[in-house]
Amino acid sequence: MELDVSTDTVTLTEQLVNIPSESRDEQAIADAVEEALRGCGHLAVERHGHTLVARTELGRSERVVIAGHLDTVPANDNLPARRDQTHLHGLGSCDMKGGVGVALKVATTLARPVRDVTWIFYEAEEIEERHNGLRKLADHHPHLLAADFAILMEPSNAGVEAGCQGTMRIDVRTTGERAHSARSWMGSNAIHAAAPVLAILADLEPRRPVIDGLQYHDGLNAVFIRGGVAGNVVPDECVVEINYRFAPDRDEAAAEAWLREVFAGYDVTVTDTAPGALPGLGVPAAAAFVEAVGGEVNPKMGWTDVARFTALGIPAVNFGPGDPLLAHKQDERVPFEDIERCERLLRSWLGGGA
Amino acid sequence: MELDVSTDTVTLTEQLVNIPSESRDEQAIADAVEEALRGCGHLAVERHGHTLVARTELGRSERVVIAGHLDTVPANDNLPARRDQTHLHGLGSCDMKGGVGVALKVATTLARPVRDVTWIFYEAEEIEERHNGLRKLADHHPHLLAADFAILMEPSNAGVEAGCQGTMRIDVRTTGERAHSARSWMGSNAIHAAAPVLAILADLEPRRPVIDGLQYHDGLNAVFIRGGVAGNVVPDECVVEINYRFAPDRDEAAAEAWLREVFAGYDVTVTDTAPGALPGLGVPAAAAFVEAVGGEVNPKMGWTDVARFTALGIPAVNFGPGDPLLAHKQDERVPFEDIERCERLLRSWLGGGA
Repeated sequence: MELDVSTDTVTLTEQLVNIPSESRDEQAIADAVEEALRGCGHLAVERHGHTLVARTELGRSERVVIAGHLDTVPANDNLPARRDQTHLHGLGSCDMKGGVGVALKVATTLARPVRDVTWIFYEAEEIEERHNGLRKLADHHPHLLAADFAILMEPSNAGVEAGCQGTMRIDVRTTGERAHSARSWMGSNAIHAAAPVLAILADLEPRRPVIDGLQYHDGLNAVFIRGGVAGNVVPDECVVEINYRFAPDRDEAAAEAWLREVFAGYDVTVTDTAPGALPGLGVPAAAAFVEAVGGEVNPKMGWTDVARFTALGIPAVNFGPGDPLLAHKQDERVPFEDIERCERLLRSWLGGGA
Repeated sequence: MELDVSTDTVTLTEQLVNIPSESRDEQAIADAVEEALRGCGHLAVERHGHTLVARTELGRSERVVIAGHLDTVPANDNLPARRDQTHLHGLGSCDMKGGVGVALKVATTLARPVRDVTWIFYEAEEIEERHNGLRKLADHHPHLLAADFAILMEPSNAGVEAGCQGTMRIDVRTTGERAHSARSWMGSNAIHAAAPVLAILADLEPRRPVIDGLQYHDGLNAVFIRGGVAGNVVPDECVVEINYRFAPDRDEAAAEAWLREVFAGYDVTVTDTAPGALPGLGVPAAAAFVEAVGGEVNPKMGWTDVARFTALGIPAVNFGPGDPLLAHKQDERVPFEDIERCERLLRSWLGGGA
């Protein structure tokens, strides 16, 4: 499949949506993006796995990373893309091929930005953190992330979102003893033993802390449950996989301690974790971008790689088209207007014509 | 692998245990049993799938079916077989390779029984009823099941067990709405919605009705649970697969009606069902066998193919080595003594030397 970067950015986004790219299946989209980038003489392009890094080398005094992930959550009967009068619909349209479309359009058409830019299109953001393309760059090629400021083009209603919530995954495991289900009183049912775990999840009222004037909203959700041996065997194990999203006033250690308290008496294993990021709007580079773009700043609920840059000491914000509340929903969509606004503001901030 | 039918029956059982035969993987054991049967000039052997039927054709006035299933539940770190002073241990030793060993030994060594015998060694008893080898015979070759009486060599402590409980499988499905787990309040979590289903299962006190002087014991157990879309998505479906075992005073319709009452308001689908069988000890052929074998008669908790014969109008009982309470347990085992007693009584009842 080919991408036509000479077309308008909404159409480019539509082309990106129509290249399926569920996590771990990003070969085709990465190939197409790579081909588009390598067609540009002003970019130095590297590929690592299915992650692409394209840099301008203009010797500017400031360098900015502008990044977006190429993968999507699993399809839910929402491909191919379709349009109505105002929106592009389809898997990944909101999270985050709208942002990728904007970045790819500006990357390939703005040859001499006033700030040097490191454009990054990366793999595996939607799954366990160890697969994340940006994390792999940080581990193996950290010089590629060096910058004064970073923009993640995650959906944020074409405005600036600051900070982000942390995320932790745990397995809560109940155990029992197998027996023939015809004589179940000889065993102990591990699935039945998970009843109180689900009740805790169903009943819990999440925190809604205010930080730097921004209101966050925790979440504690079972994302998977599994148990069972055979249709006539009392099962001896049940695993509830839980995703905890926590406002950035809690660090990972505090989040884990709280989870262990909530599920006291159960076998709890942390399987994945990524810290949140405090809003950090006091940092000069962040303040300058906010001023250039204008508008209200909102808190970021979803974990994004903003937190990764924050941890590296690089100020970062989210700024991308689409309503983050629609991410991962079957009817996710992105307004044409958001795509156009993000492209215009980004191009202008980088010194291109409006 | 080969079976040596000239050896003692405990050793023959050990050989059967050491041929793994989880349901749907009975090729090897069926091949071995077929080879042993085809070596006997006094048996007319047919194979259908992985089910073997071996008949004597002596023109006796009475014909009896003697049957055992070849499959086992999944392995649980309990192979190969091992012995202690009194027992053979290992997957399937109790349920029901002890009974299969006895049947195979007598089938191959007793050439002129006083009753004609239809020996049946069949596949897929431990999984959904539609795969059951005996059911397939009933559907496609019903003449092979014609008999005056049937003995299922399921474990029954080498005594006679009469009647059996029915079994029904249902799926209880909860639904919700997907959303990004970072903004979970935009969706609705189907796994959390299953909390009351598990609570019902955990809290329910099963019935223990007495029928014809025999005490039964119902059971209601989750045997599988599954739900989840991705590690960061609020799941929109959760399925609890439940196995209900019911005493034979309830027929399938009554069992289903009761389940729909217990899970009123939930989406309930019946996926598998098999009726119980009332003890039926008044039938002459059953009474005659009970008298010949002697000892106390007990109720059968587990569903066995006794119910299938009862439905076909053929009186049937369970009579086999091993404690049924150990079936499907990791440490299942069968006493040498039970194997020897069953073989002796069966051979004697069929007119062979004691």
